[in-house]
Amino acid sequence: MDPVKQIRLYPGISLRELLSEMRETGVLGAGRLGKSVDLVVEMFKDPDCTVFLTLAGPLVPAGLRVIISALIKRGWVDVIVTTGANMVHDMVEAIGHKHYKGSFYAEDEVLKRDEVGRIGDIYVEQKAFEDLERWLHKILDDIPELKKGPISISKLLEEIGRRIEDPDSILKAAADNGVPIISPGFLDSIVGFQLWIAWQDKKVQLDPFLDLTVITDKVFEAKKSGIIILGGGYPKHFGLFANTFRDGVDLAVQITMDRPEPGGLSGAPLEEAISWGKLKPEGKAVTLICDAVIAFPIIIAAAMEAINEG
Amino acid sequence: MDPVKQIRLYPGISLRELLSEMRETGVLGAGRLGKSVDLVVEMFKDPDCTVFLTLAGPLVPAGLRVIISALIKRGWVDVIVTTGANMVHDMVEAIGHKHYKGSFYAEDEVLKRDEVGRIGDIYVEQKAFEDLERWLHKILDDIPELKKGPISISKLLEEIGRRIEDPDSILKAAADNGVPIISPGFLDSIVGFQLWIAWQDKKVQLDPFLDLTVITDKVFEAKKSGIIILGGGYPKHFGLFANTFRDGVDLAVQITMDRPEPGGLSGAPLEEAISWGKLKPEGKAVTLICDAVIAFPIIIAAAMEAINEG
Amino acid sequence: MDPVKQIRLYPGISLRELLSEMRETGVLGAGRLGKSVDLVVEMFKDPDCTVFLTLAGPLVPAGLRVIISALIKRGWVDVIVTTGANMVHDMVEAIGHKHYKGSFYAEDEVLKRDEVGRIGDIYVEQKAFEDLERWLHKILDDIPELKKGPISISKLLEEIGRRIEDPDSILKAAADNGVPIISPGFLDSIVGFQLWIAWQDKKVQLDPFLDLTVITDKVFEAKKSGIIILGGGYPKHFGLFANTFRDGVDLAVQITMDRPEPGGLSGAPLEEAISWGKLKPEGKAVTLICDAVIAFPIIIAAAMEAINEG
Amino acid sequence: MDPVKQIRLYPGISLRELLSEMRETGVLGAGRLGKSVDLVVEMFKDPDCTVFLTLAGPLVPAGLRVIISALIKRGWVDVIVTTGANMVHDMVEAIGHKHYKGSFYAEDEVLKRDEVGRIGDIYVEQKAFEDLERWLHKILDDIPELKKGPISISKLLEEIGRRIEDPDSILKAAADNGVPIISPGFLDSIVGFQLWIAWQDKKVQLDPFLDLTVITDKVFEAKKSGIIILGGGYPKHFGLFANTFRDGVDLAVQITMDRPEPGGLSGAPLEEAISWGKLKPEGKAVTLICDAVIAFPIIIAAAMEAINEG
Repeated sequence: MDPVKQIRLYPGISLRELLSEMRETGVLGAGRLGKSVDLVVEMFKDPDCTVFLTLAGPLVPAGLRVIISALIKRGWVDVIVTTGANMVHDMVEAIGHKHYKGSFYAEDEVLKRDEVGRIGDIYVEQKAFEDLERWLHKILDDIPELKKGPISISKLLEEIGRRIEDPDSILKAAADNGVPIISPGFLDSIVGFQLWIAWQDKKVQLDPFLDLTVITDKVFEAKKSGIIILGGGYPKHFGLFANTFRDGVDLAVQITMDRPEPGGLSGAPLEEAISWGKLKPEGKAVTLICDAVIAFPIIIAAAMEAINEG
Repeated sequence: MDPVKQIRLYPGISLRELLSEMRETGVLGAGRLGKSVDLVVEMFKDPDCTVFLTLAGPLVPAGLRVIISALIKRGWVDVIVTTGANMVHDMVEAIGHKHYKGSFYAEDEVLKRDEVGRIGDIYVEQKAFEDLERWLHKILDDIPELKKGPISISKLLEEIGRRIEDPDSILKAAADNGVPIISPGFLDSIVGFQLWIAWQDKKVQLDPFLDLTVITDKVFEAKKSGIIILGGGYPKHFGLFANTFRDGVDLAVQITMDRPEPGGLSGAPLEEAISWGKLKPEGKAVTLICDAVIAFPIIIAAAMEAINEG
Repeated sequence: MDPVKQIRLYPGISLRELLSEMRETGVLGAGRLGKSVDLVVEMFKDPDCTVFLTLAGPLVPAGLRVIISALIKRGWVDVIVTTGANMVHDMVEAIGHKHYKGSFYAEDEVLKRDEVGRIGDIYVEQKAFEDLERWLHKILDDIPELKKGPISISKLLEEIGRRIEDPDSILKAAADNGVPIISPGFLDSIVGFQLWIAWQDKKVQLDPFLDLTVITDKVFEAKKSGIIILGGGYPKHFGLFANTFRDGVDLAVQITMDRPEPGGLSGAPLEEAISWGKLKPEGKAVTLICDAVIAFPIIIAAAMEAINEG
Repeated sequence: MDPVKQIRLYPGISLRELLSEMRETGVLGAGRLGKSVDLVVEMFKDPDCTVFLTLAGPLVPAGLRVIISALIKRGWVDVIVTTGANMVHDMVEAIGHKHYKGSFYAEDEVLKRDEVGRIGDIYVEQKAFEDLERWLHKILDDIPELKKGPISISKLLEEIGRRIEDPDSILKAAADNGVPIISPGFLDSIVGFQLWIAWQDKKVQLDPFLDLTVITDKVFEAKKSGIIILGGGYPKHFGLFANTFRDGVDLAVQITMDRPEPGGLSGAPLEEAISWGKLKPEGKAVTLICDAVIAFPIIIAAAMEAINEG
């Protein structure tokens, strides 16, 4: 049997060293956090590894937007699979609006009266969505492809990204770097409903099957496949299921607070993915039970240090 | 201040009476479970109340399929908003396959070799999905609407439902009773990927905007609106967000195991929905922190008893 | 493979029948809830089975007090292992105070000013604890054993129970029926600190080792051993660990909302107990992930129906 | 309204800077993790602040033992309030045994046969506890105070600590530095039951009220009071409740995975502590929903960096 190594800290310990100490415990959450860094580094350093990043939960409103766009710019992430909401909030910031510090104990009637929406302890003004709607309608008029027939959601998001100037935008970074953004449930979002109004005016048509072609093309061309799953939801399922077309991912890190016992996919440990051919039996995987908003910045900062030092 | 009433049990206490005792505590989970029954009864008894039922998690594989189809047949539920997976598993049972008792501690490599997929402690044979694919392709050839151009996901599911003979099927019950099944992320499912293959052969086209029309029509015509949310996910968001077009639902019950602190919608208490106009400030709502697979059969059985007795 | 049986409800379905339907699914939370009833019935019906009931969390404030005292009166529970707080709150009600319906969103500064303590959404007046202190000091003067030297916590709680008139009291029921109440961490409670003041006046001395003798005597004399664990904490550990002296319990039901991944005992599934000799390898056990305040009244009501019908 | 600041990373970002970036989001878990560092630094740097550290969950087996003993040696922690188990596992390592890397998916029957106990994915040999028993009995013979009458649990643990040579031991560090270890439920542990056997041979007697004197003395002499709560349980309650004797702590950080909704103290947010006078209304507090094994090493490493740099 292999003993648990006790963590030793010292002032000025670097992130990489700290995470290495935590990995060396080899057990529970500390061991898993440390191992996550190793797997993420392995994905990022291997030019043959196609990296899928799936996003669920309010990652953009919570402050992870620049981290995600930076990963795209560095060429470390190849496909984004996301809830609609995270892209909506990327647009909200792209047009100059902000998210605000609020409280879990807010009086929601008062917020409603003040036209402020609440996401946990984050506030966002309804005005942002009104401005977004105007901005979006202008963009739609400007996309020639929309005149030719139905396009994929991914293509639409790419065209929107092309028209964003904010250098911190995920959509812009993805468009600039040829990283497809896949969002099979995108119409379930505020922008989805705004697009529906534009669709009634014949301004936009979508063919959702095209998105399956986009993601499976990425799967088919992958020599090696890695996935980082932030928070579950349909992005987790879509990203993993698409990878069944190549017999599963080789490397996987999932960070979630959802429980396994109710049986939903969001809370399922990655072991379950083996039975479905989503993860190779010989693949490396870590299921980390932690809030992604806490763990992901730490993992990425440690991975950057590790990669930078070679 | 209003005192907590201690629960008193006796042999032969009926479900309705038990839940009434629990409601009378007025606090914590017991109070909320009891209050959930009241709200569900209020939704079901009021002919003017349009009832949305949202489904996430493996409710059909876990044994809730007949409960859900029975609610549709009784006319108590008017709109289903669901993950794709629950409808896939309804089809699996409709064509004669079963879900099986398994183990959370399974060896997933062995399951994979034996061509068995695992959902928590539930097993399903890959053969079921192969048979489903054949069955589906036959059905697609048989739907005249598919020849005319893109249809909604809801319409496609209705047409599938019409071709199911199994009286326990949710899809059949919904088709028979004019209850639309809305699944904005449906393509993120095994059947979604099978449809994609059919789409490559020009056998099916979908226009996802049509589904927004279907659900908002139901919202616009609702005199009163109630929602029962099982488990979170995009069904929760879509069902609630659609109701912003009438300034929110009047009655809401959410049953989830997800936490509020990470900020994701699945774990958000219903109070948050007020700020977004999804729930009326004067509406009645209960957020019950419980596994839906545990709580929902109990709530429905108690509600049936209450409604039956008048 | 054994198929999942879909649950079928009908108006007027009894609790026992409903729980039997849920058990027959055989999977996830519904299956486990149903199986819990069977194990509890098996424990209660077997006169040779010594039943340990462990209590953690605000079960008494939440309305489960009468259920617990009724189980003792029926002779179905033989040993209570509990946090101090549950016994403190039993005393609070015994002297005529109440717990009150409050809110999770309370302003705690205001509650403090109003001298109200909050437990989740339950309120209790500080006055209750002041009255309790006076009552307790009177009782201490009245217990002859306290003059003779240190006694066990269990003996002290028994003597307190003897002096309670409220027929709903757990302490009284336990004293009347010779059911020991074991609370190894009892001094960590409001009454614990009040006793400390009395100890400074030489009014009370405790020998905590005597409590180990009390619980292990129950373990040694048990022909068969069953345990019902509500909520984890030290009551879970103490109840299970004491049973290592007879190579583990034969029957076990645990109801908890705590997670397994952090590795703490409260969230550990009962399988882990086998490795420690706390649960027999051939024993029957169910770990139910549910709020005990929700599940326990349902399980007990169904068990009463089953036992009553024979 | 104050905007959420997006986190910006760069290769080589130090822990302190990373945590500062996270704090500046001001929301959700990242904001709370960052704020936790600030509060911990404030506690550690202020010589007038008495710092209570409460321990629940398998912190020592998981690799946090040296971190905790180092905090004591640096004089940053003044009182430890702990479950018995963490001190048992400190002794296990002190006498030369180890904890081992295992698996959550272990076959517990096999572990039992091999005489290995499991804590989540950590293994420990039963042989360790047998050696511990022998070692302990020798030590007991060597403590003169035990011949004079009942002593406090804290005093006993101090005497044990004095007899440990392992420089990484928490018990030794505490004994060497005059930091009391308080464990009101200590007898609920493997060593507790071993002491019970020694008590039967008249080798040890304990007076648990003495421990209340030890902790309240620390509370009374505190000019300022801070508490770091790892994981809930009775250590959380005892540490906070003792501080009601000075109208509450001034600074508090809680790290837990337990939920608030079931109403138990372990999952209660620190706001609730205000109503009870455990936390000053004007105090600073952060409730961080995270596995302590993940968050605590990160917080301490960042705090060390901050303090070292002044």
